[in-house]
Amino acid sequence: MSGRYLEDFAAGQTFGSGQLRIEKERAKTFAAEFDPQPFHLNEEAAANTLFRGLAASGWHTAAVTMRLLVDSEFKPAGGIVGAGFDELRWPRPVRPGDVLRVESEVLEVKPSKSRPEQGLIKVRTTTLNQNGEAVQIFVGNLIVPSRAAGRG
Amino acid sequence: MSGRYLEDFAAGQTFGSGQLRIEKERAKTFAAEFDPQPFHLNEEAAANTLFRGLAASGWHTAAVTMRLLVDSEFKPAGGIVGAGFDELRWPRPVRPGDVLRVESEVLEVKPSKSRPEQGLIKVRTTTLNQNGEAVQIFVGNLIVPSRAAGRG
Repeated sequence: MSGRYLEDFAAGQTFGSGQLRIEKERAKTFAAEFDPQPFHLNEEAAANTLFRGLAASGWHTAAVTMRLLVDSEFKPAGGIVGAGFDELRWPRPVRPGDVLRVESEVLEVKPSKSRPEQGLIKVRTTTLNQNGEAVQIFVGNLIVPSRAAGRG
Repeated sequence: MSGRYLEDFAAGQTFGSGQLRIEKERAKTFAAEFDPQPFHLNEEAAANTLFRGLAASGWHTAAVTMRLLVDSEFKPAGGIVGAGFDELRWPRPVRPGDVLRVESEVLEVKPSKSRPEQGLIKVRTTTLNQNGEAVQIFVGNLIVPSRAAGRG
């Protein structure tokens, strides 16, 4: 395995990413498959909703965030494997044409007492638009192998 | 608007859904676009990972869960609009060929003091496979309009 082991992570570390643009047509086809609601599908129908205009599905934003994370320098050994999330929020809508990037910060590193070959890291990942505004925040616990596992 | 208003929801209500099958090819194309990691892309590479075989991306499971919810009888007036989640977990992998359905339970109904036209409902949504095993659990807070808004 390549990438960072549990021992390579420390609270306070931050990782950036590249950028991905949310294309209007992809936002609509994603919504048509997974989240077919008027505010994600059609500009005119969206105008009279809480979103006041077309917005990408939050699950599209979450999926694009994952792609940005996978391609970033974060790279835990063994991959990005989420054990669960403590929080997931979409503080403002993602609009077609928005260009997204992520910033991740390690909040905590927790070796496992029962399983020395792995541990958890708690990471806050903020997805930002081209204006630097947060469009998604999640705090997740990721399973990361320790160097003991790497030697195994 | 049609659908259920805030006043129509009560703690303890449950809602079921239809079913959707996770097709192997769609799991792979979803992963190639959004979560390109070996355990989601390739059977052989997946065999030697934590997942011990090909597994759908958790974000694919989340997106399919949303589709099941949108098509279910849950139907809040104004649509399913998540203000945020308190918890999101994937207790076991989703395998290609798994047939998923969801069960939602209303945990709490919270009228807004400052905004009488809407409120929040806290809902636990469990995604189950064909063996009745939970593959995803999330607890979300949804924005739901009140009847006052419906009259507006």
